[in-house]
Amino acid sequence: MIAPLEDLLATLSRLPGIGRRSAERIAFFLLAKPEEGRRLTATLAGLDRITRCPRCGNFATDGPCAICRDPKRDGTTLCTVARPWEIPHIEKTGEYRGRYHVLGGLISPSQDIGPDDLAVASLVERVKVEGVREVILALEPKLDGDLTAMHLLRVLKPLGIAVSQLAHGIPVGRDLESADELTLGRALKGRTQL
Amino acid sequence: MIAPLEDLLATLSRLPGIGRRSAERIAFFLLAKPEEGRRLTATLAGLDRITRCPRCGNFATDGPCAICRDPKRDGTTLCTVARPWEIPHIEKTGEYRGRYHVLGGLISPSQDIGPDDLAVASLVERVKVEGVREVILALEPKLDGDLTAMHLLRVLKPLGIAVSQLAHGIPVGRDLESADELTLGRALKGRTQL
Repeated sequence: MIAPLEDLLATLSRLPGIGRRSAERIAFFLLAKPEEGRRLTATLAGLDRITRCPRCGNFATDGPCAICRDPKRDGTTLCTVARPWEIPHIEKTGEYRGRYHVLGGLISPSQDIGPDDLAVASLVERVKVEGVREVILALEPKLDGDLTAMHLLRVLKPLGIAVSQLAHGIPVGRDLESADELTLGRALKGRTQL
Repeated sequence: MIAPLEDLLATLSRLPGIGRRSAERIAFFLLAKPEEGRRLTATLAGLDRITRCPRCGNFATDGPCAICRDPKRDGTTLCTVARPWEIPHIEKTGEYRGRYHVLGGLISPSQDIGPDDLAVASLVERVKVEGVREVILALEPKLDGDLTAMHLLRVLKPLGIAVSQLAHGIPVGRDLESADELTLGRALKGRTQL
């Protein structure tokens, strides 16, 4: 097979969930429809415009994200997530009207990631400055998520606020993204006090 | 969700086999690893270098394709396929040492595609000029493939050459690409005379 096509197949195969056969289907689709390749190139260029919200760490295009800019959001509740792409999943449930805080990861002894590598200090600062009354921990119910939750509980409890976590509507051992809207919504409603 | 991300999700969802959930996984992977996005952009740019072989219609980068340039290939046998991306699948069987001819599609009354829309005249010309003794029809065993095979048989038989088709090792009603190498190899070996 010719080099540009082999390169494309190899690159597509690096994407999550794309095997060799899927890569071939996509490559031949792009060869048959060059306009789709140009569209993909243009949208990939758009990724450079994506920055992080200086306040909460959510995806943004310029300054604070849409949720932080929205005056109708409840600023007394912060939902803490590991990664910004978990926010749209929680938004889709329609159960949450507070704001968010993105940690940028989870505490992970195996990957040598500690609290100082995460946006924990800024979370504490926001709680103090923004009049936050409750922090919801929306972290995956696995080792790293539990370690992170324990650490956050330890630093947040002395501030005299409520700290809660999602109810175990989420299947244990699965990613946050794998939960459907209904399950995730119930997990939010039934969140348990820590 | 922010516009550049929505655009990317929408564009990825247009690719074959990519649903909304797969598109999200890929988009967040690209956001987390910008170097993968740049790699993909670079390989997409490489698609512009892909042309068609002026002789057989296979993918090429400059002039005739690698198979047409290879003097060790048997020029007396032509395997006729609808699309160039079917060639690598046949090559992988290791059963075929002849050359190829790409029709550019199949006769399709429903899509108003007739013999004049396909590379049929150039196939007849090659048979006459290149001393071809056998044309193998590797066309999908569905309506359009059968119609195309019937037409090709009609125009090729008067030239006094053998015309064969792939044996029915290929599951009927499935795409050529879905056959594994072994099945496709057996279908080639057991091709039936028409």
